[in-house]
Amino acid sequence: MRIALVAPLAEAVPPKLYGGTERVVSWLSDELVRQGHKVTLFASGGSRTNANLLVCAPESLRLAGIRDHIGSTLHMLRQVRLRAHEFDIIHFHVDLLPQALFHDLAHKSLTTLHGRLDLVDSLPLYAAYPEMPLVSISNSQRKPMPSCSRWLATIPHGLPSQVCPFDRLGGDYLAFLGRISPEKRPDRAIEIAKRAETPLKIAAKVDNADFEYFKTMIEPMLDHPLIEFIGEINEVQKAEFLGNALALLFPIDWPEPFGLVMIESMSAGTPVIAWRQGSVPEVITDGVSGVIVDSMEGAVAAVKTASAMDRREVRAEFETRFTVARMARDYITAYQSLLADIPFPFAVKQQPQRAPLGQVSRQGNGAPAFGAAASG
Amino acid sequence: MRIALVAPLAEAVPPKLYGGTERVVSWLSDELVRQGHKVTLFASGGSRTNANLLVCAPESLRLAGIRDHIGSTLHMLRQVRLRAHEFDIIHFHVDLLPQALFHDLAHKSLTTLHGRLDLVDSLPLYAAYPEMPLVSISNSQRKPMPSCSRWLATIPHGLPSQVCPFDRLGGDYLAFLGRISPEKRPDRAIEIAKRAETPLKIAAKVDNADFEYFKTMIEPMLDHPLIEFIGEINEVQKAEFLGNALALLFPIDWPEPFGLVMIESMSAGTPVIAWRQGSVPEVITDGVSGVIVDSMEGAVAAVKTASAMDRREVRAEFETRFTVARMARDYITAYQSLLADIPFPFAVKQQPQRAPLGQVSRQGNGAPAFGAAASG
Repeated sequence: MRIALVAPLAEAVPPKLYGGTERVVSWLSDELVRQGHKVTLFASGGSRTNANLLVCAPESLRLAGIRDHIGSTLHMLRQVRLRAHEFDIIHFHVDLLPQALFHDLAHKSLTTLHGRLDLVDSLPLYAAYPEMPLVSISNSQRKPMPSCSRWLATIPHGLPSQVCPFDRLGGDYLAFLGRISPEKRPDRAIEIAKRAETPLKIAAKVDNADFEYFKTMIEPMLDHPLIEFIGEINEVQKAEFLGNALALLFPIDWPEPFGLVMIESMSAGTPVIAWRQGSVPEVITDGVSGVIVDSMEGAVAAVKTASAMDRREVRAEFETRFTVARMARDYITAYQSLLADIPFPFAVKQQPQRAPLGQVSRQGNGAPAFGAAASG
Repeated sequence: MRIALVAPLAEAVPPKLYGGTERVVSWLSDELVRQGHKVTLFASGGSRTNANLLVCAPESLRLAGIRDHIGSTLHMLRQVRLRAHEFDIIHFHVDLLPQALFHDLAHKSLTTLHGRLDLVDSLPLYAAYPEMPLVSISNSQRKPMPSCSRWLATIPHGLPSQVCPFDRLGGDYLAFLGRISPEKRPDRAIEIAKRAETPLKIAAKVDNADFEYFKTMIEPMLDHPLIEFIGEINEVQKAEFLGNALALLFPIDWPEPFGLVMIESMSAGTPVIAWRQGSVPEVITDGVSGVIVDSMEGAVAAVKTASAMDRREVRAEFETRFTVARMARDYITAYQSLLADIPFPFAVKQQPQRAPLGQVSRQGNGAPAFGAAASG
């Protein structure tokens, strides 16, 4: 299949540092090539890919110091438009603008929405262009969207197996990985560690926007023998950091649309202790790949539960549900169903979930069961 | 002519408070109706107009608390698109997005750029859609734009004659009107007043973004018998505030694309003392409607020059060059030249300017002489 992937210009593909969307696009791109497809990647300079690369900005907009991305993105979209006839499928990973610019090509275009959708600012757009096919990365992500939205599928992210290699032994500390920000609740992580009397290592960057939060709320909590603040780490360090942990803490307090770090942890064999929010009940199989909690007491108790879990089963869950090969196959199926104009098979072929009953109500809004594709 | 005017959704048309673009669109809209055209205004709820109003957002985005305007604007643009066949001309006052969405209707679409264009973020867009006709509001505004830009005309803003009525007598104070911000240089205004030993009244709002600048840099300078800080004033108060002044101080330190307050002051008969920056040499006729300066010494000396100026000549300049009737006629000529696909007459029919020689070099980038339309 001749596939165009259109990446954000904010970072290179893959990104040098932070940039979840660009990482996913990078993995998807190379895997689609590996599976025999002809892939063209529209991305910023500095990108590296096995696909045919079309550079649409001299360097990543972050490096170029460009804060308003609209001009550069619209420039890229014109390049895409001029070559649209060369592709069977045009797959966008930039929110908003493709809806307005490619709706007349809705028969061969789709957009994966990578962000949270509970901010009202963008909703008028999706209501205005209901014919544009959308892919969500979790079912819970869809909830705030207009009822007229044309959902093609929910396709959870996938990860190449070697990014976070399986670690059979694990370690003795709890891990917190990501950004220091109020919605990620590093304060909860620290409290869990102290109450469970288990060491906690925090590997996290502090953005300028969150610097005050870090200085006033988090730094004062760090002065404790069980708590170690490591700061930002790179991809290689991350794999080791996760593999050597007893469990990953994911005590979020926002509607997380997916949460890549959960599947990175599962890939390493490390179970995840996560708050029941956003995508969590769809990503974590409670009692198998982690423990889903609703309270501080539950989270503290979960440390013991997690330490008794079979790390091979955690990895097995990853391999069944969250490899990049599965993600790429899901997208190919979605592309084919769009081109054939038939309902996406995910919508009818549901697989029994091992998740708690509470999860069922989270699959409303006409969304198919998450992970059902794994049965195909 | 059947004309669509597409306004920003940020504020109602006209705006309840601040909002220069929405005010200009409001004046243009009603004047085009008065001149016998069939005008449809796309704008937010709460707008009042003599044109046919199409409400494209329930209320202004500021009132609705919507910070990211893309979704709502793209929603509006779809409404415009669906009715595009009903109009001879579609005239956009929202930057960026129409370039990408209406370039196939470039034979009947144009965009007036209302903002500064010296920020690199948007330039890739204008380079990507060079066929879209543009209108600048001063020649100096064009300088940073790609050479391929399709400039239809420079059309300076115009003002209904009654908004700031002519005041034959004027008064004895210097006026500073607008926002407190570093690029508007209220500090310079205060220093001019102190050195010229002339009272200064500052009628200005302080945005949240500039609150620290106001508290640390400006407030300490206010404690002086000659300086009076009035705060934000409404439209009615503004006319009186300008009319009662000896001169308006406009000591800017940024590439001002137009500067509505200069023509408001001229309308009241009050000369303008302005720094040679951005549009200033195009709006002010040195020695007639104000004094153009390059230094603090020049500005202090200009207070005396301005006080000796004939306020009737200042008003005459306004009536010749900056009425809303002239602006509307200019736009009709631009619309007609676009539809006829002939060069806009402004580009060939130049009128001798009373401005200093230095102004000529400011008319580069293929721009016609500013204000030349007044001869038509």
